[in-house]
Amino acid sequence: MTPIAPDAPGDQIPEDEILESLMAEAGFTGTVADFRALLMGIEAAPADRDQDAWLDLVAPGADPALAERLRQVRAGLGRARRPVVPREDRLPLLRAELDRRGLDGFVIPRADEHQGEYVSASAERLAWLTGFTGSAGVAIVLRDRAAIFVDGRYTLQVRDQVDGNVFEFKHLVEDPHAEWAAANLPKAGRLGFDPRLHTAPWAERTARILQAAGAELVPQQDNPVDLIWRDRPAEPIAPVRPHDVSYAGKPAAEKREEIAAALAGKGVDAAVLTAPESVAWLLNIRGGDVPRTPLPLSYAVIDREGQVELFIDARKFVPGLNVHLGNGVTVRPPSALGAALDSFGAAGRTVMVDPGTAGVWILDRLSAAGATVRRDGDPCALPRARKNPVELEGARNAHLRDAVAVARFLHWLSREAPGGSVDEIGAAERLLAFRAEGALFRDLSFDTISGAGPNGAVVHYRVTPETNRRLEPGSLYLIDSGAQYLDGTTDITRTVAVGAPTEEMRDRFTLVLKGHIALATMRFPKGTTGSQLDVIARQFLWHHGVDYDHGTGHGIGSYLSVHEGPARIAKMPNPVALEPGMILSNEPGYYKTGAYGIRIENLIVVRDAAPIPGAEREMLEFETLTLAPIDRALIRKELLSPSELAWLDAYHARVRELVGPLLPAAEERAWLEAATAPL
Amino acid sequence: MTPIAPDAPGDQIPEDEILESLMAEAGFTGTVADFRALLMGIEAAPADRDQDAWLDLVAPGADPALAERLRQVRAGLGRARRPVVPREDRLPLLRAELDRRGLDGFVIPRADEHQGEYVSASAERLAWLTGFTGSAGVAIVLRDRAAIFVDGRYTLQVRDQVDGNVFEFKHLVEDPHAEWAAANLPKAGRLGFDPRLHTAPWAERTARILQAAGAELVPQQDNPVDLIWRDRPAEPIAPVRPHDVSYAGKPAAEKREEIAAALAGKGVDAAVLTAPESVAWLLNIRGGDVPRTPLPLSYAVIDREGQVELFIDARKFVPGLNVHLGNGVTVRPPSALGAALDSFGAAGRTVMVDPGTAGVWILDRLSAAGATVRRDGDPCALPRARKNPVELEGARNAHLRDAVAVARFLHWLSREAPGGSVDEIGAAERLLAFRAEGALFRDLSFDTISGAGPNGAVVHYRVTPETNRRLEPGSLYLIDSGAQYLDGTTDITRTVAVGAPTEEMRDRFTLVLKGHIALATMRFPKGTTGSQLDVIARQFLWHHGVDYDHGTGHGIGSYLSVHEGPARIAKMPNPVALEPGMILSNEPGYYKTGAYGIRIENLIVVRDAAPIPGAEREMLEFETLTLAPIDRALIRKELLSPSELAWLDAYHARVRELVGPLLPAAEERAWLEAATAPL
Repeated sequence: MTPIAPDAPGDQIPEDEILESLMAEAGFTGTVADFRALLMGIEAAPADRDQDAWLDLVAPGADPALAERLRQVRAGLGRARRPVVPREDRLPLLRAELDRRGLDGFVIPRADEHQGEYVSASAERLAWLTGFTGSAGVAIVLRDRAAIFVDGRYTLQVRDQVDGNVFEFKHLVEDPHAEWAAANLPKAGRLGFDPRLHTAPWAERTARILQAAGAELVPQQDNPVDLIWRDRPAEPIAPVRPHDVSYAGKPAAEKREEIAAALAGKGVDAAVLTAPESVAWLLNIRGGDVPRTPLPLSYAVIDREGQVELFIDARKFVPGLNVHLGNGVTVRPPSALGAALDSFGAAGRTVMVDPGTAGVWILDRLSAAGATVRRDGDPCALPRARKNPVELEGARNAHLRDAVAVARFLHWLSREAPGGSVDEIGAAERLLAFRAEGALFRDLSFDTISGAGPNGAVVHYRVTPETNRRLEPGSLYLIDSGAQYLDGTTDITRTVAVGAPTEEMRDRFTLVLKGHIALATMRFPKGTTGSQLDVIARQFLWHHGVDYDHGTGHGIGSYLSVHEGPARIAKMPNPVALEPGMILSNEPGYYKTGAYGIRIENLIVVRDAAPIPGAEREMLEFETLTLAPIDRALIRKELLSPSELAWLDAYHARVRELVGPLLPAAEERAWLEAATAPL
Repeated sequence: MTPIAPDAPGDQIPEDEILESLMAEAGFTGTVADFRALLMGIEAAPADRDQDAWLDLVAPGADPALAERLRQVRAGLGRARRPVVPREDRLPLLRAELDRRGLDGFVIPRADEHQGEYVSASAERLAWLTGFTGSAGVAIVLRDRAAIFVDGRYTLQVRDQVDGNVFEFKHLVEDPHAEWAAANLPKAGRLGFDPRLHTAPWAERTARILQAAGAELVPQQDNPVDLIWRDRPAEPIAPVRPHDVSYAGKPAAEKREEIAAALAGKGVDAAVLTAPESVAWLLNIRGGDVPRTPLPLSYAVIDREGQVELFIDARKFVPGLNVHLGNGVTVRPPSALGAALDSFGAAGRTVMVDPGTAGVWILDRLSAAGATVRRDGDPCALPRARKNPVELEGARNAHLRDAVAVARFLHWLSREAPGGSVDEIGAAERLLAFRAEGALFRDLSFDTISGAGPNGAVVHYRVTPETNRRLEPGSLYLIDSGAQYLDGTTDITRTVAVGAPTEEMRDRFTLVLKGHIALATMRFPKGTTGSQLDVIARQFLWHHGVDYDHGTGHGIGSYLSVHEGPARIAKMPNPVALEPGMILSNEPGYYKTGAYGIRIENLIVVRDAAPIPGAEREMLEFETLTLAPIDRALIRKELLSPSELAWLDAYHARVRELVGPLLPAAEERAWLEAATAPL
């Protein structure tokens, strides 16, 4: 997903003289080393669709000539790398470093210090050490053996990417890594870990398990992997910009006041925000430090007066951002966070920390300094999840634009696929091209899952040139994709029959559709959680002895993370009640390994239910945001109840009426007309 | 529910000489004081339907003359009571005692030391102090104020029973009692509690909350209430008998081996069993120390070799029980438990304790003695919940006999109720009389809920002479009842129309029925929990904006507790997966306050699903055990789907075929024929 430093020597770093002349021209104040570091940080950030966005951080308003010279220097930096450590040397180097530290092992998680789903190139320690690029996993390196733990999604991928002679392959859930370490460490063994990359519950549980085996969990001030990763990318420097209140719907000052009141109500003095999406939401800013999600990697502390200390590399700020942040926000370097925690301790404050997302070092440092740590959920998580009316209107607009792109894509697919000329990569690129034509489009919201035939049955499939398949007649094609628009984040899955589907495909598809409709039309009393609703989408599949091994719905941010807590619709218990304004996905599926995959995903938003005669409770319901045809060729009409059929026809009518007029070509409009005709 | 010592002086205690002559005749070895204590304990136990059962503990095989004299002496003891403490003196006496101990307050829970739902008369401290007889609640007495906390079921009852000038009325959930104590204790205040009556999670949470307010939670070795409760009933002595393997289905020795293997697998040396139902299940014994549930109040410790120490008052044993227990079980007095815990500590053992049911003193004592406490669920809870084939066959037989009684009752009701001659108490007595005719009947499994009209809307209604209502035409009558048979425990609710029901009643009844059928016909993959299924029974009510404020299903024991863990079907998350053999209730409802109540309850048992063509997962389903007509007059047929209608007709056909031939009267058989006719 994230580019890894190539294992090849590169060009030379540009000469100081060249940089000095550019600095002068750009009006950059600072040393040549500063300038080079800035460019290295910019280079380490993910690519921006606006290829010149970064110039705002170096030479705002640069003339074309200067801009061109800066581009060339940056490109040179991109190719210029310190010598790469050969893959086979990495584990021995790490073990030598552990030996120097008196450690018998070390834990390398995939997580970064914000426990985020997407991480920066500089945080891809697990990938660098093992080769494994999946989105979840952990490795444990001991003196004489090492193991990598991944979940069911990645059991095949890890075998492709990681050397089985060096790492044993373990299942993340079935073979818990703490227990494995406890069983394989020597007596009185010392297992090192980086307390910035692990939560307190992890550290406490792991320490307990090791202790029971006579071993010890030992925090490391600096990460030994970073020490031996000589060509480690710099921390990313991507532009941080204001998120306009016309999209955010509420001024940051007002949000700060509300959070401050919540903290006062809980009797705490301040809260540490460790999730960049919370910082982004609170301060109405967006960044670009990780792929697919406009996060400004940062920490913040907000006190009960609503004053914020923002710990961030200020080189990321576009001009004017300080003005946008305003007087209530003090900007400090990330390195100052530790001292700020110490001062809370010295003042005897009570500080709230989310144990699920904060590195354990934060809790430990607060406690050591004398502060009282209140473990509680991120105070921004719920307000962020409850989208305000402006955000909801933005979401509807974004979904309509997205729907135009999806309809054009599905029309294109219906024309091209039967001829056998479409492959997975080509289809994904085509959809991206349609989306990029839409207003306010900024990026995809995740790497498109474009799965033909058996690849559709791989739930978290990511197409590569090696796996790329053609869409063949008689097969199903599953495409799960989404976009980041300034006014909203989208996420949609459609499954399309290429040529004539089998009866089994239509049967399973209809069961999935019945579950999708049951959830979309659900009414439920206030206080209901997503876990309570999950079975609604599965019941028809269960009656036929089949199921799907993923959640039914996840929360979605507003021009933020495509996977956003705290609510979700899943088998796993989750105490968070669904509340009006929360946007979630509705995505039941069915997967036949080696054959095909089916998923039907719309985004839905929780709202107060329309009045119900005789009702006695305050009820909620869902509004469906996503507007795209559901393949009629895959529906067995006779399996639908009259009310299910009515929902489908009404949904298609809405798609036709809202999206049809926005399609540029008559051919596309005609296709939509047919695709949304009553069943 | 449980008889409380009457507030009236009684007869004199029988003379020593009389007792001595009886002792000699009965062959009782021991002092007169021993003999009197035995009879006082017997008298303090709940009434047994076999009124002479207790004689087995005093003079087994007594001739009629001796038996009669013993009966008379016992009756005299029953009337002879120490002077009663007047109600208004109790709180001042308690406060004086707290003052002597330097306490600023004390917590009085309804729970006994086993955290059971039914408690012995000697454990009814909350009722004695406050007058409140509900099944859940807690009082806190401070120096200058006191409060009683009850849940929504008891907000009316508590006002009837408790003096509002002395106790403030609080809601158990909305006004947490720990927080109330913290807010109302003086600075550095000391709140006493009895560590036998509270769990570790309670004590830890309460201590934390008090600490934050500068107060302290202080354990008391002896309970100050017991000290001032001068006429406190003795600890109950009810006969403990073998539970025959023809009902239990598995010899106790085999169960002990299996639990031992489970302990070894978890790496613990022993487990403390604090739930009497676990002791009863493990050793295949039943007692009678609390109402409605055949519990032998006791503790046990089982080690990883399967050796058991049983801490019980051996005076409860019927002759031959020691032989039944066998060599693997050592019997010790309850007072020896503390020393046994100490010896685990001295030996450095790891001991498993269920923090949800054990008094905190057990964990504290183990820790203080040097043992390692492993907090984990009761190791007997899951094996007990998974009924074996013999227990399941027993349950089916018990349900068939119960069904005969219920059918006869419903027939009687259909004949008598329209005439206006039936009231709630009369109906409950009638049903009991029918049940008592059945083989292996031992007792009700809980006090019958017999609710006419608006009383049916009171979910945990218990009829009293004051609330007793006639069943009137145009109303609904709800009866929730169950029985203890030696081969199984039953629990059934039926709602019956008296005269012509309104359309609204029929509408709501049909929604409840649809939910009941949806759950009864559910199929689900292995690993599914009851919390996941709960919504299945509510969905139709939710679509109409209504709901019910209780769980959908609870576990049921095998001639044991009518509410049995660890699985349940409820909104509240519960991590326990449903497994074949578990018996649960299926009891959705609807309640219109002041008007009527509806509930349809059958017991269901989890089993492997019948083969499903094309199925890919291991699926489970339910078998319905309860066999009684569902009132056809209350069903709006047009609201049922074809499959719901098919289920109902097939269910009724099964009832007709199985129960019909067992009904003694032709009139009853004819009624059943009509009541179960296809809709």
